[in-house]
Amino acid sequence: MNSTEYSVDLRDIQFVQKELLGVQKLVDYEPFGEFSEEDFDMVLREGSKFAESVFATVNKIGDEQGSNLENGDVVTPEGFKETWRQYVENGWLGITGNPRFGGQGLPLSVAIGVMESLYGSNPALYTVLMLTAGAAGLINGFGDEQQKTAYCEKMLNGTWSGTMCLSESGAGSAVGDITTKAFKAGDGGHYLIKGTKQWISGGDHDMAENIIHMVLARVEGAPAGPKGISMFIVPKFRLDGTGQPGASNNVTTVRLEHKLGIKASPTAVLEFGGSGDCHGYLLEAENHGLAQMFKLMNEARLTIAYQGLGIASGAYRNALAYAREREQGIPIEQGKEQGAERVAIVHHPDVRNMLMTMKALVEGLRGLIYAVAYYNDLAHHGPEESRGRYQDLVDILIPVAKNAGADQGFEAVRLGMQVLGGVGYTEEFPLAQALRDTKIASIYEGTSGIQALDLVTRKLGMRGGELFQELLEEMKDVTPEKAKAPSVRQAIEHWQDSLEKLKLTVASVKNLAEELGPREAVFNATDITVFFGDVTCSYYLLKSALLAESRLEEIAAGNGDAREVAQDNEEARFYFNKIKTAEHYVFQILPRALSVAAKVQSRNFAALEAVL
Amino acid sequence: MNSTEYSVDLRDIQFVQKELLGVQKLVDYEPFGEFSEEDFDMVLREGSKFAESVFATVNKIGDEQGSNLENGDVVTPEGFKETWRQYVENGWLGITGNPRFGGQGLPLSVAIGVMESLYGSNPALYTVLMLTAGAAGLINGFGDEQQKTAYCEKMLNGTWSGTMCLSESGAGSAVGDITTKAFKAGDGGHYLIKGTKQWISGGDHDMAENIIHMVLARVEGAPAGPKGISMFIVPKFRLDGTGQPGASNNVTTVRLEHKLGIKASPTAVLEFGGSGDCHGYLLEAENHGLAQMFKLMNEARLTIAYQGLGIASGAYRNALAYAREREQGIPIEQGKEQGAERVAIVHHPDVRNMLMTMKALVEGLRGLIYAVAYYNDLAHHGPEESRGRYQDLVDILIPVAKNAGADQGFEAVRLGMQVLGGVGYTEEFPLAQALRDTKIASIYEGTSGIQALDLVTRKLGMRGGELFQELLEEMKDVTPEKAKAPSVRQAIEHWQDSLEKLKLTVASVKNLAEELGPREAVFNATDITVFFGDVTCSYYLLKSALLAESRLEEIAAGNGDAREVAQDNEEARFYFNKIKTAEHYVFQILPRALSVAAKVQSRNFAALEAVL
Repeated sequence: MNSTEYSVDLRDIQFVQKELLGVQKLVDYEPFGEFSEEDFDMVLREGSKFAESVFATVNKIGDEQGSNLENGDVVTPEGFKETWRQYVENGWLGITGNPRFGGQGLPLSVAIGVMESLYGSNPALYTVLMLTAGAAGLINGFGDEQQKTAYCEKMLNGTWSGTMCLSESGAGSAVGDITTKAFKAGDGGHYLIKGTKQWISGGDHDMAENIIHMVLARVEGAPAGPKGISMFIVPKFRLDGTGQPGASNNVTTVRLEHKLGIKASPTAVLEFGGSGDCHGYLLEAENHGLAQMFKLMNEARLTIAYQGLGIASGAYRNALAYAREREQGIPIEQGKEQGAERVAIVHHPDVRNMLMTMKALVEGLRGLIYAVAYYNDLAHHGPEESRGRYQDLVDILIPVAKNAGADQGFEAVRLGMQVLGGVGYTEEFPLAQALRDTKIASIYEGTSGIQALDLVTRKLGMRGGELFQELLEEMKDVTPEKAKAPSVRQAIEHWQDSLEKLKLTVASVKNLAEELGPREAVFNATDITVFFGDVTCSYYLLKSALLAESRLEEIAAGNGDAREVAQDNEEARFYFNKIKTAEHYVFQILPRALSVAAKVQSRNFAALEAVL
Repeated sequence: MNSTEYSVDLRDIQFVQKELLGVQKLVDYEPFGEFSEEDFDMVLREGSKFAESVFATVNKIGDEQGSNLENGDVVTPEGFKETWRQYVENGWLGITGNPRFGGQGLPLSVAIGVMESLYGSNPALYTVLMLTAGAAGLINGFGDEQQKTAYCEKMLNGTWSGTMCLSESGAGSAVGDITTKAFKAGDGGHYLIKGTKQWISGGDHDMAENIIHMVLARVEGAPAGPKGISMFIVPKFRLDGTGQPGASNNVTTVRLEHKLGIKASPTAVLEFGGSGDCHGYLLEAENHGLAQMFKLMNEARLTIAYQGLGIASGAYRNALAYAREREQGIPIEQGKEQGAERVAIVHHPDVRNMLMTMKALVEGLRGLIYAVAYYNDLAHHGPEESRGRYQDLVDILIPVAKNAGADQGFEAVRLGMQVLGGVGYTEEFPLAQALRDTKIASIYEGTSGIQALDLVTRKLGMRGGELFQELLEEMKDVTPEKAKAPSVRQAIEHWQDSLEKLKLTVASVKNLAEELGPREAVFNATDITVFFGDVTCSYYLLKSALLAESRLEEIAAGNGDAREVAQDNEEARFYFNKIKTAEHYVFQILPRALSVAAKVQSRNFAALEAVL
C-alpha cells in the first residue's frame, strides 16, 4: 500500500463477504453446489492480484492517451489490447456468466469482491468489459438458441465485445422518446436498423474481433412511447456462414466524446444504417425492449455502485499511505513548545477526521453493496420461500446503492485529494484521475435524480410500502443491548433515532403527495435517497462493529486494553478500527440525515415557486 | 446567457454592491473622494464586458494547451500574451493599486465586482495577474522609496509580473519550516539567495518582460521557526543602471506541475542561486517576513473566495441556460397521461432544486464576500471610530469566506454538471473545466483545514470572543418582524434558531478545549467553519430578501400577485427570485448546520482513537 499505486483492501473484502454476510453459505444452493469455500477464496486472491498487477498498471497511460478515433476506427491506449487478452484468458469476463457458454457461474456476491477492484483499478477499461458481460447476459436471458450459440460464448470469452445502445440526442433520461427505427426486411430473418445512438461506451475499439451492439429501436407501426420499443442484436460485422465476422454491417463511428474522465473508455456516437444496410436481429419479440432493459438494469446499477466503491477504496489507501509518510507541522497538543518534533500528518485531528470519513464512507458502501449482491444471489438461487423477500430488498436498495456508490465515492475521493493537498491536485498522484473518473457515476446508467425518483415514486409505493417494511425488518438484528462498549451502544441508539426520522420522512412524502401533489412529494427525492444510503450503510457498519467486538474480545482476552493490543496485533487492529469506523459513521456522517429530515419537514418549496 | 459561454450576473452584482451594501457611500471617505457613483458603475460595466468578451475567450484554449516548459522557458497558451497586454492597457491590473504608481485606487468592494468575473472567466490567467498585484502591494506597503520607484509602477502596469515564493518541498502548510537561505553579500547592498521553492504560480512565463519574485528565506544565523523568516525581492532579471531588466539573476525553472486544472497557470518549481549568484533585496528588515505575509494574507484569501464565486456564478448561468433549452421528459404532475408534452428540464422538481441550490450558494457567497470587501474598505478608510470593529469583522470572516468560496463554489459546479447530465461530463461544455479549475481553491493559500484552525483556535479566541460578539451584533438587523411574507418570517426565525445553535457550538468548543484538550477542540473545526459560512450567507440573503420585499411591493403595487407580476417584469422577477433564493438557502441548505451541531455535541472522537 502506497500513495501512488492501486491496492485492494483484501482484509475488509474478506470480512464483509465471509464474516458479515457469510457468502460461503451459497455453496449449499444450486447452481453453486460445485464450488467450495476455498474456490471463493482463490477467486478473490487471484482477482485482487490481477487488479493490482495487471489492470492498475495501464490505468494512467489509458488516461493520458485516451481512446482516439483515427480514420473511422477507434484506437485504444498502449497496453489495452494485451490487458484485455489477459483478462479474458484468465476468465474474469465470464466470472458470473453461464457455464454453458464458458462462464464461471460464480455468485455475484463472491464475484463482486474482484469486480470492485477491477473497476476501481481501471474504470475506463472495465466499463467496456462490464458492458460486454451485460450484453451477453441479455442474449443469454432473452435470445433464442441460435442467437445464444452464435454470440454468448464468443462474448464471454472476450473474442467479441458488446455494448448497450439506448440514448439518442433527444432521448437520454426519457428513454421512451427514442426514434431509431427498425424495418422488417422482406425475408423475415432480420430487420433494417436506422438511427443514431450516443453515449455508447465501448461503441468501437480495437480490442475484440467483433462488437455486438444491443440496440433499442422502434419497429415501424409500434405504439408510441416506452411500450413500442424493441431490442435488436446488431453486430459490427455480420456473421458469415461459419459464424465468423464477415461483411461490415453499416455501423459507423461518427465521433468520440471528449470527457472529463474514463478517457480510455471510447464513448461513441454511432450511426446505424447510414447507407440503409444495417441488419438487426430481434431479441425475443417486438416491443419487449424496455422490459428486457429493466431486467438488466438492477445489475447494471449495482455495477456503478461498486465503481464508486472501488475507486474510493483505492483513493483511501493512497491517502492513508500519504498521510503516514508525509511529515508536516507539530502536534497541536504541544502548542508552540520549543523543540516540538514534526509529525506525519496522520496525527493531525483534521486529517484523521478526513481519513476516517473516507474509511467510513468506503466501508459503509462495501457493506451495503455486497449485501445487495448477496440478496440478489439469494433472490435467484436461495430457498424458494424467501426469494420474494430478497428480491424486494434488492429492488428497494438498488437505487440507494447506486447513488451512495456514486456520491459517497466521489466525496471520499474529494477528501483524499484534500488530505494530499497540493500534490493531490497534480496528475502525478492518482487522486486527480480518480476524481475525474468517478464523477461519471452519478450521471450514467440513470442519473442520481432518476434513481431517486425510482426509489421515492416506485419502490416506496410498491404494495403499500411493503418493501420498506421488509428493509426495516432486515435491520432489526442490530440493537443496543448487543453492544459491549458504551460508545457502540450509543452509536446504535443514535442510529435507531435516525431510523425513526427516516420513517417519519417517508410518511411525510406520502402526506405531501396527498396534500400538495407529486411535484412537492418528489422535491427532496435525491436527499431522501441519501438518507436511505446513510441509514443502511450505518446498519451494515454497526452490525460489523458488533461482530468486531466479539472477535476483538477473543483476541485481546487477558491481554489488556483493546487499543493497546490493536497497536501490535494486526487482526486486533482491524477489528478495533472497524468499531471506530462504525462510530465515526454514525456520529460524524449520519447526522446529515437530520438535515434531510428538516428539509422535508420545512415544507418550503421556494425552488418550485421561483421564476427560472 | 447561454450554456457554453461565461456571462456575468451584472444585475446581482449591482444589487449586492449598491442596494445591499451601499458601496457608493465610500465616495465620502478619503481616498475615494475623487470618485463618483457613476465612476463605480462604469468600472463594473466595462470590467464585466472585458471579462466576457476578452478574458473568457481564451479560457478554453488555455486549458487545452496549458503552459509548457520549453528549453528552460515557460510558453503560455495562444492568445495569453495579447490578453495580458489588453488587460494591463485597460488598467485592470492596478484597479485597487496605489495611484502614485499608476494604480486606480478603487475601493476593494467596488473592484471586486469586476475581479469576481475576471477570476471566474479565466481562473488560470487571473491567478498570475492577481499575484502580480499582490506582490506589488507588498513592495508598496513595506519597501523603501528606491524599491517602490524601481518596481511598483512597472508591476502595476503589467510590464513586469510578480510571484509569491513561500512553499518548499518540506514546508507547505507549516511555512515556518522553510530552509531557503539568504547570505548577506559583502557590499551590504544585497543578499545571495539559495534554495528551491515550489507551487509558484506564475513562476515563469512569457507575458511580461521581467518577473519579480517575493521570496521568503532565512538569513544566516536567524532564529529557528517562523520568527527567523525574511522577505526578499528577487527579480528574474536584475535591473541595470537605467532600471531595465539586465543580467539573468540565476533563477531557474526546474519543472512545471501537471495539474488537474488551471492548466494555463504555470505552477513552477524554481531554483534560486543554483550557481550561487542570485541577488535578493531585503524588504523592510530581517525577520519581518512572516508578519508581512500575514498582512497580505487576508486579501489573498479573499481572492480565493471570489475565485470560487466567479466560477460558480458562471456555472450557474450555464446550467440555467441549458435547463431552459433542453427538453426531456414530461411533467410529473401529468403522470402518464396520453399526449403529455415534453418540457424543458427546468420544469422538473429535482432540476429546479439543484438550480436553486446553485443560485443560493452563489448569491449567498456573493453577499458574504462582498461584505467582507466592504468591511475591509471601511476598516482602512472609514470613520476612525469604527475601523477597529470592521477590522474585527474582516478578521473573523476571512477564513469563513475562503472556505465557503472554495467549497460552496465547488459544490455549485458539481451540481451544474449534474444538471447538464452526460454533456456536462464532456469538455465541450464549460462545467468540466470549471470543476477542475475550482478544485484548487480548497487547497492553495492555506488549505480548508488551515483556515478552520485560524477561525477556531485564533479568531474565536481573540479578546475573549469579542470578534464573534461583533459578528452577532452586525447580524441583529435581520428580524422576523421586518418580513412581509409569512415564508420570509419563518425563514428568519429558522435562521435565528441556527444562530443559537452556532452560539452553543462555539461554546462547546471552548468547553472541549478545557475538559478534553486541543485535539478534541479542533476536531470539527472544518465543519464549524462551514456552519459559520452557512449562517452568514443566510444572513446576507435574508437581508437581501427584506430589501427585495420592499422593492417588489413598490413594483407590484396594485398590479396583483407578486409571482404573476414577476413573470413579465424583469425587475420584479429579480426581486421575487431573490426572496425565494433566501428561503431556499435557509430551508434547503442551512439545515446542514443541524448536522454540524450534532457532530460537535456527540463528543465522539473515534477518529482520534483509531489506530491509523
